[in-house]
Amino acid sequence: MSKTISKQHTSIGIVGFGAFGQLAARYLTAHFAVAAYDPSSAVASMAQRLGVRLTSLHDVAQADIVLIAAPVSSFEQVVEQIAKACNPGALIIDVGSVKVGPAEIMRKLLPGHVDIVATHPLFGPQSAANGLKGLKIAVCPIRGNRHTRLAAFLRKSLGLTVIVTTPEDHDRETAIVQGLTHLIAKVLLRMGPLPTRMTTRSFDLLSEAIAMVQHDAPEVFEAIERSNPYAEAVRRRFFDLAADLSVELDAPLPSPARNEVLIGE
Amino acid sequence: MSKTISKQHTSIGIVGFGAFGQLAARYLTAHFAVAAYDPSSAVASMAQRLGVRLTSLHDVAQADIVLIAAPVSSFEQVVEQIAKACNPGALIIDVGSVKVGPAEIMRKLLPGHVDIVATHPLFGPQSAANGLKGLKIAVCPIRGNRHTRLAAFLRKSLGLTVIVTTPEDHDRETAIVQGLTHLIAKVLLRMGPLPTRMTTRSFDLLSEAIAMVQHDAPEVFEAIERSNPYAEAVRRRFFDLAADLSVELDAPLPSPARNEVLIGE
Repeated sequence: MSKTISKQHTSIGIVGFGAFGQLAARYLTAHFAVAAYDPSSAVASMAQRLGVRLTSLHDVAQADIVLIAAPVSSFEQVVEQIAKACNPGALIIDVGSVKVGPAEIMRKLLPGHVDIVATHPLFGPQSAANGLKGLKIAVCPIRGNRHTRLAAFLRKSLGLTVIVTTPEDHDRETAIVQGLTHLIAKVLLRMGPLPTRMTTRSFDLLSEAIAMVQHDAPEVFEAIERSNPYAEAVRRRFFDLAADLSVELDAPLPSPARNEVLIGE
Repeated sequence: MSKTISKQHTSIGIVGFGAFGQLAARYLTAHFAVAAYDPSSAVASMAQRLGVRLTSLHDVAQADIVLIAAPVSSFEQVVEQIAKACNPGALIIDVGSVKVGPAEIMRKLLPGHVDIVATHPLFGPQSAANGLKGLKIAVCPIRGNRHTRLAAFLRKSLGLTVIVTTPEDHDRETAIVQGLTHLIAKVLLRMGPLPTRMTTRSFDLLSEAIAMVQHDAPEVFEAIERSNPYAEAVRRRFFDLAADLSVELDAPLPSPARNEVLIGE
């Protein structure tokens, strides 16, 4: 394969220069010539600060490596546009919270002469605040074999922990991991401001977990809950178990409490 | 006041030598002569290891300071026994996850010649694994003014963060803090083993929070959910909001998702 992932001359085109596209650029400019496309003009100053050239979608799609950081809502149109402009031998990578659907769209719409790797960085700007070291990223090979070289780059150059998996296994596991986290965060946020004074360590951890996802774009929640084919079953299970518990707690005590000591945890 | 909290000769009697009574003894033996009562004989070796004299409830109840670390289920009988044996000028302290009920029982059953302070250490053996420094304890003055000297001891000698409050304010706040933590932990535990591979930082925090309470005695959950007068309302609110969210997620997308970038957080 002529293309290599870590020579300065290799070009990367980022489609969608929002929170995540910008986070990616912050680390990729050291290794690649980075250009980006975003429908919003609000990103211009940030692009300049990061040394990223803003250009058209068609132009960005002609890079050696195309990184799709667009929202699920516009994912299919974006891939259609890239399909028209991308060069033979290009590597197309997406980053998104769900993988089954997007992987299928890329496989279907992108020409056979490009390689495809579907990824999901299991972090965002918040958890990457202190650097990428040790953070996790799921990598799903879709077409071609360049995922091995990509994985090596993510591991060695960015310090990420790489989990090579399939879109199905990814979505099955994140339906629980992200589905439950966002579901619980949503419910607790609706309960209003949470106590901060008489808190236990476990409640502090719970509050911290919620704080990490509460500022995610609404699309993230929608994508996780609606676009992940396994999310509904997990959600249903959680709500059913919660309902069962609610019934149990409304009923009188099943058996006389055993004579154990009450811990204040 | 003749009694002072921190002379070696001052005696402390711990009623209930379970997980929490033992944790307390571990720190109190350095400051007091500690005796303990527990209906179970299984605690003998631990008592010996900690240098705690095991004796009768009547004997323990005659100490200068009586620390009630008995479960809610036997709390009232225990206080009745202490009321018969306690000495004038004694300081009676309880440690439990709820305060309104126990405080009322102590105020009602204990003789007027003893001082009473209701407390809730907002931690257990798990969160105290690395010492007490900075851990929180709620202190509710019930009778007499020795809570000030007690608070000073907890702060200076044990390094705890002391929150002086009322049983009502305590229960109102912990109904959310502990009520929600244990409720969510219970539901998630019933979902079976949680993923550990493709996890986000926020999910790791959530898992850590659950791990901290999942080994608490069943009585702790029952006490928090049933004996806290404010817990049912909080619970009901959580379940109702969860049900609302469930309905919303089953309905089609309200508005076309805005063109923001999908973050993998």
